[in-house]
Amino acid sequence: MARWEPNAQERLVRAALELFTEQGYDTTTVHEIADRAGLTKTTFFRHFRDKREVLFAGQNTHTRLLADAIGAAPGPATPLKAVRAALDALTATFTDDRREIGVRLRPVIAGHTELQERAALKRARLAGAMTDALHKRDVPEPTASLAAELGVRAFYDAFDQWADPANDRTLTELTRRTLDELRAALVALD
Amino acid sequence: MARWEPNAQERLVRAALELFTEQGYDTTTVHEIADRAGLTKTTFFRHFRDKREVLFAGQNTHTRLLADAIGAAPGPATPLKAVRAALDALTATFTDDRREIGVRLRPVIAGHTELQERAALKRARLAGAMTDALHKRDVPEPTASLAAELGVRAFYDAFDQWADPANDRTLTELTRRTLDELRAALVALD
Repeated sequence: MARWEPNAQERLVRAALELFTEQGYDTTTVHEIADRAGLTKTTFFRHFRDKREVLFAGQNTHTRLLADAIGAAPGPATPLKAVRAALDALTATFTDDRREIGVRLRPVIAGHTELQERAALKRARLAGAMTDALHKRDVPEPTASLAAELGVRAFYDAFDQWADPANDRTLTELTRRTLDELRAALVALD
Repeated sequence: MARWEPNAQERLVRAALELFTEQGYDTTTVHEIADRAGLTKTTFFRHFRDKREVLFAGQNTHTRLLADAIGAAPGPATPLKAVRAALDALTATFTDDRREIGVRLRPVIAGHTELQERAALKRARLAGAMTDALHKRDVPEPTASLAAELGVRAFYDAFDQWADPANDRTLTELTRRTLDELRAALVALD
């Protein structure tokens, strides 16, 4: 029977990012990642299909957090207020000790087209989860998807700022501010 | 010396889409595509790197059309008016005889994750081209990229309507209307 490994997923993510940074994404093997994390390959494959997926570990948790928070927003909340609540719920999980993951993640993804494509898919999934949750609140199209896309954009822009080594603000704070800035910029469009 | 083949690129696109529709994307070979178009494999490879790229033939032409039109928009045009001019220039090239291409393209892309990822990249490139062109007009961030992304979204939403067999409107008309609707929906966000 499989032995329970405390915090295996996070250990694998950290080990993978260390190795990708040290020796490159292409040459790192699943065996090396498991080894560095002090785990077996079997444990690795219980958590991830391949090394690429390690970089997108949070996708399911994140889409669920966003959708649940939109569902739980107060009845009269506007679409963007519901999205704001969802982003608060998501960003609260990005505690300061996880910033290092963000710092290392960015250059690895930026260096590989296949990872950029996968990242684009994750981004679309996050927007899709919020759009679906807004539809359940009877927000019509295209309002629902516009609010969701604006929220996802705020999150990613803020994440880049958060992962900057010089930054000392929380991701929640940065995401809220970015969403406000995007909202304000919309009025200058036309 | 290479013989000049009139309209080779469009013939290859049409042949590829016929074959992808008839017998599937996966099983169709470059040889079959060239054959159906009445051309040689050598001619195929002068136009496309592989069969996937046939589906994204217009990317370079389209990004150039968008960027040029934004550059040529009147000085006082707002960001969204410049984007509107760019979309007019782009959609004018989608004449009615090219609708069949759109009708066939959609299901092929929808059926393959690798094609969806490639399509997401093309979409990002179109938005990027408009964003860069707006920057050259001194439109600041995030206004420039928001206007560009709204424009690209209008184009893709309208393209889906245009490729619907029941549609009888031009892509220009549909794109303008969709952009107006998106613009109006922004005020309902918050």
